[in-house]
Amino acid sequence: MHHLPFTFEIALPAGVPTEYDNHITRSLSSMRGQYADQQAYDAQLAQEDVLLYEVYEICCPESSGELLNGISIVHPGAVGDEYFMTKGHFHAVLETAEVYYCLAGEGYMVMETPEGESSVAELRPGKVLYVPPRWAHRSVNTGAAADLITFFVYPGHAGHDYGSIEKQGFRKLVVARDNRPVIVDNPRWTPPEER
Amino acid sequence: MHHLPFTFEIALPAGVPTEYDNHITRSLSSMRGQYADQQAYDAQLAQEDVLLYEVYEICCPESSGELLNGISIVHPGAVGDEYFMTKGHFHAVLETAEVYYCLAGEGYMVMETPEGESSVAELRPGKVLYVPPRWAHRSVNTGAAADLITFFVYPGHAGHDYGSIEKQGFRKLVVARDNRPVIVDNPRWTPPEER
Repeated sequence: MHHLPFTFEIALPAGVPTEYDNHITRSLSSMRGQYADQQAYDAQLAQEDVLLYEVYEICCPESSGELLNGISIVHPGAVGDEYFMTKGHFHAVLETAEVYYCLAGEGYMVMETPEGESSVAELRPGKVLYVPPRWAHRSVNTGAAADLITFFVYPGHAGHDYGSIEKQGFRKLVVARDNRPVIVDNPRWTPPEER
Repeated sequence: MHHLPFTFEIALPAGVPTEYDNHITRSLSSMRGQYADQQAYDAQLAQEDVLLYEVYEICCPESSGELLNGISIVHPGAVGDEYFMTKGHFHAVLETAEVYYCLAGEGYMVMETPEGESSVAELRPGKVLYVPPRWAHRSVNTGAAADLITFFVYPGHAGHDYGSIEKQGFRKLVVARDNRPVIVDNPRWTPPEER
């Protein structure tokens, strides 16, 4: 928590900030049911509970005038043919946006609204992505060997809603076909009106 | 104005985004009374109304869940011994923060509260600066020849209040001494209780 101006540095290539309040790590075991190929997931987890992504959070009071920010690092890899990705979430206060600045790596942000509208945006260094209010978002690392590193900023009062996405995932998946990323439909996704 | 997810790229070294809604330019003539050395200001303006800084704005609805963002480019130079700088402002909604990510160049963010508390933070590539709610802010380019380029994000409802700063400037000035930046007191600044 900070009430005075402060700075920190994002030292590349690692992307670990010189100061932060929380360091969140998510490994394969925390993503049960989130990958389309359940068999591949089980086999991979039996071998190793590999680290999928990390988030360094810079905290501030959770009010609408404040800006939570931090660094997201998604490691390279795949479960079956589906690339490593974050859990993805809506904001608990749905009418809140998020801005991403891509620092390193390559990948996609997979997004959708509660009404099922879908959008997928490419991420590469130097790109800014605006996720408008109401759009759930998940980052996916499609790089062969490098981390996908993004700097994010969102309103202090936004909060997180992971549950809605956990139920059936996003409408679109990012999978490898001939070693290249392709965006395909998620077979277990159903439109909101059929849920 | 955008209601769908969108991306743009900040192509360095120029720092001009591939898409934007507004391009604001501020030249010397728009900074009358803001530099300590009025004589140097007049002499310089008589020669050329030089471009001091530019802002590329990416607009969104001006509500608390949205995030206005853009790129600020302060060119190198000085008026007398005082480095080129932005006008600086409070947010009209005082309880709103701002986050800066420095992309290129070197300089300082000069900040202060309505109560006269002062803070000066160094900016260089890779640095993130959190300007908490209530802190007016001005960026200053102390580089010899290169632009100071920052990416900024602030809440959609923040607004701008330039008038308060225009009256007597910030408490601190950034000036060149022996070709190095030094932070000094602003002689025309008075504490809030004496205004």
